[in-house]
Amino acid sequence: MTTEAACAELVSRLKRIHVLGTVNGLLGWDEQVNLPPDSADLRAEQLALMAEVQHAAASDPRIGELLAVLEGRRAELSPDQQVVLQHARRDYDRVVKLPAEFVREKARHSSQAFHAWADCKARSDFPGYAPYLQKHLELARQEAAYLGFAAAPYDYLIDRHDPGMTAAVIERLFAELKVSLVPLMREIVASPVKARLDIFRGFPVEKQRAFLRAVTERLGFNYRRGRIDVSLHPFCEGSGADIRMTTRFDENNPLNSLFSSIHETGHGLYEQGTRLEHQGTALGQAVGMGVHESQSRLWENQVARSRAFWRFFEPRFRKTFPRQLRAIAPDEFYLAVNAVQPTLIRVDADEVTYNLHIILRFELEKRLLAGTLAVADLPAAWNALAQELLGLTPPNDREGVLQDVHWSGGMFGYFPSYCLGNMMAAQLWYKVQGDLPGLEDDFARGDFSRLLGWLRRNIHEQGRRHDTQELVKVVTGEPLTPRHLLRYLRERYGALYLGN
Amino acid sequence: MTTEAACAELVSRLKRIHVLGTVNGLLGWDEQVNLPPDSADLRAEQLALMAEVQHAAASDPRIGELLAVLEGRRAELSPDQQVVLQHARRDYDRVVKLPAEFVREKARHSSQAFHAWADCKARSDFPGYAPYLQKHLELARQEAAYLGFAAAPYDYLIDRHDPGMTAAVIERLFAELKVSLVPLMREIVASPVKARLDIFRGFPVEKQRAFLRAVTERLGFNYRRGRIDVSLHPFCEGSGADIRMTTRFDENNPLNSLFSSIHETGHGLYEQGTRLEHQGTALGQAVGMGVHESQSRLWENQVARSRAFWRFFEPRFRKTFPRQLRAIAPDEFYLAVNAVQPTLIRVDADEVTYNLHIILRFELEKRLLAGTLAVADLPAAWNALAQELLGLTPPNDREGVLQDVHWSGGMFGYFPSYCLGNMMAAQLWYKVQGDLPGLEDDFARGDFSRLLGWLRRNIHEQGRRHDTQELVKVVTGEPLTPRHLLRYLRERYGALYLGN
Repeated sequence: MTTEAACAELVSRLKRIHVLGTVNGLLGWDEQVNLPPDSADLRAEQLALMAEVQHAAASDPRIGELLAVLEGRRAELSPDQQVVLQHARRDYDRVVKLPAEFVREKARHSSQAFHAWADCKARSDFPGYAPYLQKHLELARQEAAYLGFAAAPYDYLIDRHDPGMTAAVIERLFAELKVSLVPLMREIVASPVKARLDIFRGFPVEKQRAFLRAVTERLGFNYRRGRIDVSLHPFCEGSGADIRMTTRFDENNPLNSLFSSIHETGHGLYEQGTRLEHQGTALGQAVGMGVHESQSRLWENQVARSRAFWRFFEPRFRKTFPRQLRAIAPDEFYLAVNAVQPTLIRVDADEVTYNLHIILRFELEKRLLAGTLAVADLPAAWNALAQELLGLTPPNDREGVLQDVHWSGGMFGYFPSYCLGNMMAAQLWYKVQGDLPGLEDDFARGDFSRLLGWLRRNIHEQGRRHDTQELVKVVTGEPLTPRHLLRYLRERYGALYLGN
Repeated sequence: MTTEAACAELVSRLKRIHVLGTVNGLLGWDEQVNLPPDSADLRAEQLALMAEVQHAAASDPRIGELLAVLEGRRAELSPDQQVVLQHARRDYDRVVKLPAEFVREKARHSSQAFHAWADCKARSDFPGYAPYLQKHLELARQEAAYLGFAAAPYDYLIDRHDPGMTAAVIERLFAELKVSLVPLMREIVASPVKARLDIFRGFPVEKQRAFLRAVTERLGFNYRRGRIDVSLHPFCEGSGADIRMTTRFDENNPLNSLFSSIHETGHGLYEQGTRLEHQGTALGQAVGMGVHESQSRLWENQVARSRAFWRFFEPRFRKTFPRQLRAIAPDEFYLAVNAVQPTLIRVDADEVTYNLHIILRFELEKRLLAGTLAVADLPAAWNALAQELLGLTPPNDREGVLQDVHWSGGMFGYFPSYCLGNMMAAQLWYKVQGDLPGLEDDFARGDFSRLLGWLRRNIHEQGRRHDTQELVKVVTGEPLTPRHLLRYLRERYGALYLGN
């Protein structure tokens, strides 16, 4: 068979796996958005069966043959074809190297551990949850071993979320961030300037919905290839041709759904910016969690918490909610947009302290996977780090080590992406401002098209041509560093809280 | 292998095909309810791939082996197992006897013919559509031949929708109906009593939504295993564990969405009444289109257009819309609920004239499939029958032969089910009133549970243990006949329009 024919067949098989994945994605979206409460059993059956169908397509030995053929003729391949080949190999190996019984056991355990976590969290019962976490750690090590990472299971898990990233790199980046961020946070907390969030009352949901739709549309989200609905936890699902975002509404907290929608819009814009003709191959896929998070955070924080953004939108927000905002002065409003207040709960954290929550989890995951921290000692280690980093000690494990769902699904190596994304967002932010002078003047006119165009060209349309670290270097001219994030936080929050 | 093992494996494979079908069903529902406008290409890819996956599961030769084993040991099977076997054979034969290329060609042609129909309907251009219809007729004959019905293609098509039914039986039933229905309709049309529908103005959609939810819940629809949304054309999708109904709203026509929702609720109650443990086999499936329609029509017409129903709901309707209903007297309201007005358009037809629209289509389909009516002569034949049956001649083909979508999808043999369902509904109605004295007093108290219980036991939980005609006989003690429908129409509409 010719090289071109082998490439074409490989791509066609990858696209088929991708389309099956989009069906699973829709089932998952529908489960969160629409599923009647007692229909969960059928949905579980549907998901299990579709996972089986997708696994069969992804592990078809014919893919292995095609990969072998093409790997023997790498010199004949274009750079893009090599990218497709490399990632197809990576995905195929993962599918065929994990025994079916292992995959089933992990799925079974994840389901049990999720329910155990929910129960134990409600009762703040860490010892009840500990055996499930222990088993997940063993499964994670076993999985890493199957894939050839027996000596470095945490590196394997990190690489799953951020290709090319390692624990050692993250450790260095987080250490550099921490040493400056903790004092900055303490300064801000000590400031007499305090944001108030209890001033927002009685914002009707339908008007919030219309406003956030207008905002996200203006940022560039294409509602002809996507939609936004309501779910318990906001998320963004889909790729390329059909993006489903969700949010939730609170009449007394309109900024929460607005910013969470803008965050999901950042994810959605990334997916909508991948090339439709490359859907299903590495050329049409997001690099990883960290880069994804850089997009959501850039739009949510650098853009939508800026003065320029609100120069355009504040008059419109006030026109939509004249009565509710009458007593709130512009300065008070902008301070509320950039509120800082340490909290024990990660998902409630502001932009400054959020990173400290991540550093805490990275530290603990690293030690758990290395075997230098026993599960039984985890709550104490958590509480000590919370005190050191946030200046707060959880009154119970529900508000401490049991707060997040991730570990109950065996998702180790996921947390660091959030903070890597924040670093990357700030690094991209200063780069794009240099590349596109007067960018914030665009925002003040409600025009975000130059920014989106730049992100499209530099990030979205690149697919997986570069891994996380390479991409940052290619786009910004320097390796990933926390310096830009620190600069950004000092500039924005220093001005508001420290009179800098 | 033991007989029990063969049965168990067959059932497990049937359930697998069923679950794949529910995934396809959800994709179809989502397409009508949620799909962003430019995401249709991806949805088409998803549906095509899932159809392929389902076809592969349904045509697996292992099913043929299991069927052969069990057919050789029929004497060992319980009656229920025999029902499962018989229908599994029927479905398997259909899947394996139709060549893949034929199935693809029919799907391709249906898609092209649908678009041609929509275009030609907009321009009222029957000659432009004629070749597509001609080709669909050829495909239908070819399909019947593949399945061994070369001599009786229309019987094959009817049997697809209503197992066991034939054109000859329908012809006899429709002839008997027509001879009494046409004069009855003419009498009603000549009556000085006229219902007015233009008296309904300004019913807010949100209040309509809440009201119809309360009504359908009280009828017995289980919203913990189903939901209702909005789509362009109302429909009901799903089976057993997750039923998705749709409706549409018009501020100036609240009865339309209410009755269409009650109609879909009738379909939904049938599906929710099938046994969950039998989902995927004939024991947990609806008999066919006619019986399905009997359920939707019974709830929509016999129940929800009755005086007893409105004795309970009218005060509630008036409480929900006091301003809108103030000037509408109770008699005027009830007459509007039972409006009769011949129209050229089937989907706008009332309960009395609807059946005549079906008789017209049956007559034409029968002749088209028999080859005694040429496609080129169809518009003239349509118009002549419309005049004969409805007393109306379409001013153009858009309001005549081009009005319905069905034939553009090759769906011949589908229309008769609507009228068979109406007959069956009336026949069941008199039977259940005999079985459950005082049933209408229940309705006046807002209690529909005895009726639903009777339908559950006699129809819903029976699955496909009987075919359409047998079921009617088993449940009502006599073969299907139009006499009950005629009696019901005379009683209800005679009282309102003819002073009987």
